[in-house]
Amino acid sequence: MDGDDPRERKRQEFFDRYNNRGLDTGVRLQGEYFLHVVEDLDEVDPAFTEAWLTWIYDHLYNRQVLDDRTRILVILGQCCAVGLLAQIPNHIRSAMRAGATKEECLEVILQSSIYAGIPRMRAALAAYKTLMRELGLMDDTEPVFRADARD
Amino acid sequence: MDGDDPRERKRQEFFDRYNNRGLDTGVRLQGEYFLHVVEDLDEVDPAFTEAWLTWIYDHLYNRQVLDDRTRILVILGQCCAVGLLAQIPNHIRSAMRAGATKEECLEVILQSSIYAGIPRMRAALAAYKTLMRELGLMDDTEPVFRADARD
Amino acid sequence: MDGDDPRERKRQEFFDRYNNRGLDTGVRLQGEYFLHVVEDLDEVDPAFTEAWLTWIYDHLYNRQVLDDRTRILVILGQCCAVGLLAQIPNHIRSAMRAGATKEECLEVILQSSIYAGIPRMRAALAAYKTLMRELGLMDDTEPVFRADARD
Amino acid sequence: MDGDDPRERKRQEFFDRYNNRGLDTGVRLQGEYFLHVVEDLDEVDPAFTEAWLTWIYDHLYNRQVLDDRTRILVILGQCCAVGLLAQIPNHIRSAMRAGATKEECLEVILQSSIYAGIPRMRAALAAYKTLMRELGLMDDTEPVFRADARD
Amino acid sequence: MDGDDPRERKRQEFFDRYNNRGLDTGVRLQGEYFLHVVEDLDEVDPAFTEAWLTWIYDHLYNRQVLDDRTRILVILGQCCAVGLLAQIPNHIRSAMRAGATKEECLEVILQSSIYAGIPRMRAALAAYKTLMRELGLMDDTEPVFRADARD
Amino acid sequence: MDGDDPRERKRQEFFDRYNNRGLDTGVRLQGEYFLHVVEDLDEVDPAFTEAWLTWIYDHLYNRQVLDDRTRILVILGQCCAVGLLAQIPNHIRSAMRAGATKEECLEVILQSSIYAGIPRMRAALAAYKTLMRELGLMDDTEPVFRADARD
Repeated sequence: MDGDDPRERKRQEFFDRYNNRGLDTGVRLQGEYFLHVVEDLDEVDPAFTEAWLTWIYDHLYNRQVLDDRTRILVILGQCCAVGLLAQIPNHIRSAMRAGATKEECLEVILQSSIYAGIPRMRAALAAYKTLMRELGLMDDTEPVFRADARD
Repeated sequence: MDGDDPRERKRQEFFDRYNNRGLDTGVRLQGEYFLHVVEDLDEVDPAFTEAWLTWIYDHLYNRQVLDDRTRILVILGQCCAVGLLAQIPNHIRSAMRAGATKEECLEVILQSSIYAGIPRMRAALAAYKTLMRELGLMDDTEPVFRADARD
Repeated sequence: MDGDDPRERKRQEFFDRYNNRGLDTGVRLQGEYFLHVVEDLDEVDPAFTEAWLTWIYDHLYNRQVLDDRTRILVILGQCCAVGLLAQIPNHIRSAMRAGATKEECLEVILQSSIYAGIPRMRAALAAYKTLMRELGLMDDTEPVFRADARD
Repeated sequence: MDGDDPRERKRQEFFDRYNNRGLDTGVRLQGEYFLHVVEDLDEVDPAFTEAWLTWIYDHLYNRQVLDDRTRILVILGQCCAVGLLAQIPNHIRSAMRAGATKEECLEVILQSSIYAGIPRMRAALAAYKTLMRELGLMDDTEPVFRADARD
Repeated sequence: MDGDDPRERKRQEFFDRYNNRGLDTGVRLQGEYFLHVVEDLDEVDPAFTEAWLTWIYDHLYNRQVLDDRTRILVILGQCCAVGLLAQIPNHIRSAMRAGATKEECLEVILQSSIYAGIPRMRAALAAYKTLMRELGLMDDTEPVFRADARD
Repeated sequence: MDGDDPRERKRQEFFDRYNNRGLDTGVRLQGEYFLHVVEDLDEVDPAFTEAWLTWIYDHLYNRQVLDDRTRILVILGQCCAVGLLAQIPNHIRSAMRAGATKEECLEVILQSSIYAGIPRMRAALAAYKTLMRELGLMDDTEPVFRADARD
């Protein structure tokens, strides 16, 4: 991207105004999605955005105690257990970026049956399958049986 | 259905590969919807599917201690209380299949106000009304007042 | 109990001041425990107590749509699913008073594994076992293995 | 509105059949949205509707201990913390009707990061931004970065 | 307190090592309890403690958008709704320090019945009553009826 | 232990009656604590115990997709996020048995601030500290500041 690209200009603006180590960490872990989140918070409150960035992406995600792969799989498991479905695609992509396989991500989801019950697992599984289809990693087959069946 | 029907072929395939008492129990309780769930899990992991089927539909749903009607009304109440909205239509249909009336299903939902608060009840009620309209058991009247009113 | 008994005097005082159909319903369902709850709320706010009594025990628990046994088993299932452990002994006693067996109460607890996960089930099971021992319905045997084992 | 208006006729019908102090309180706090909720409950169960109206809008919301602004901001905070997203737009409108600024509503949402975690805050924030755009209180700018980025 | 007092020495040590505006804000809002929390975190991880202090007590609690009384009542309501019982005594004391009356704290608790159900309210109420008795603001009367009644 | 030891006899009894691969897996992961759980379930329902053992310890924990260390750290994170405090000591011990350091367990707990809020993290941290003191891995120092401070 060059300087005339709106994303490149916005990215530069964020690096001019916000904690750079936090921004670098977020982009390393989550790619462009992370800048989407920064933009979402920046629109309502820059001071909050800077404090959030410093707390999580400068400090917590740079502590080095846990490797990124393990840390993000733990986060994925927490999102399954609490039912934070909107977060699941980002953390699966982020886990894979950090070296986890898609089978490991699926395993975290299936295993959440034990600690959070079957419905939470199935909701997370639906998010997983949607993402895998978007990424071209799972066939886009039409199911034979319908969820609203009246047989 | 005959052997050329894709659903009949898939059903046969499931009975060839999976725990038959589990499949029979699921179909008895939930009809075709159950096969939709089996298909959903089978697509990602057959070994997990067999273990899940054995644990819940072969064992837990065949213990005979509670009659099906009571057991499913308890499950419906749990889905209301925890906010597992996607599960509600299936369990209402399943409760009615086991002999509960639609008024009893509604009562479980209304009563969940006490234990889980009014918003959880209202969300479950919306799922109930949508299903009743789909089943032709409630008139499809347009509300007079709007949820996004600006009066 | 006669008029000199403090509990009898307190009971009379509640019937003089509060919704009588609500009080009768609560006592029918929960026995003296219910008067304990009334006393707990009465100490902080009589007007709130009357409104609570009218909403739940006069109205919701007298609607007659669900039989008491089913309704209380549903409530027990909700308390297991949400982790409302302090409520479990009362609702088990109340379910048994309404005709449920202790095996049916146990079944509701065991079945909550599916919808709320194993740890919620195990916490509810511990409450069940403590109550059964208090009621003399389960032997008070010392476990052989320890929870804090360091083998 | 005159008597030929369907909303005016429905409003009159509700005042003829239900607790008037409850209805007045609900309309004072929430405007037409409140009548939407009454209509939603009235369709399934008038006796429940009257009991609900008496418990919450006649009693609880008329106790005068907390001013409306504080009470509704507390409710908004609870909806953020528990993830009751469908309730958020109504309570923000209701808080503003009771004198809270939009900045105070936003602050309740941002602060919920501490007690309920970042994902719950972000989901509530999305509801806030959608409402602000509908009310014309926030510009409707297209974000530069995409949530589903694949860069 | 003078320099020989262990609490005074510890307090001084914290001000030498940690974000002073964060510490001042915490002490202003929560008194000595706040230093107890700092000590609890300091024992396991000083770098985490500094980041937590900066995020919440330097930034979030100093934004000035909401007055302290309103903000803490919102937090109290969230703790009731999510069942964070261990936090309730501290936030009640903190709300009263910021100008809320004990009746307003009680009102937040009672009102949580609507959004989180009766059991969550009753658990928070028990925490409220225990604190009020410790503070000498409520009589320490023995209840007449027992919670484990077998009548 | 020899055959006269009650624990050895009980262990042998379990291996005679229950799924052996499930028992071996549970003991490998959790040591004697696992046999405590088996005993707890066995007392109320042997058929349920066998089904539970087969589902979780024979199937789910033997799938080999995730290494034990990662899987248990994910579980620990889920217990923090959902507030399943009673499970935390066992899963920390189990994670350490599978090769995680105590610092990694602490990191999972501290990081749960982001996804589940500060109070859930603090409750999990208290469980961690209690366990570390029991294991002799953290000094048993008396805190200087008190949680119930009235300064």
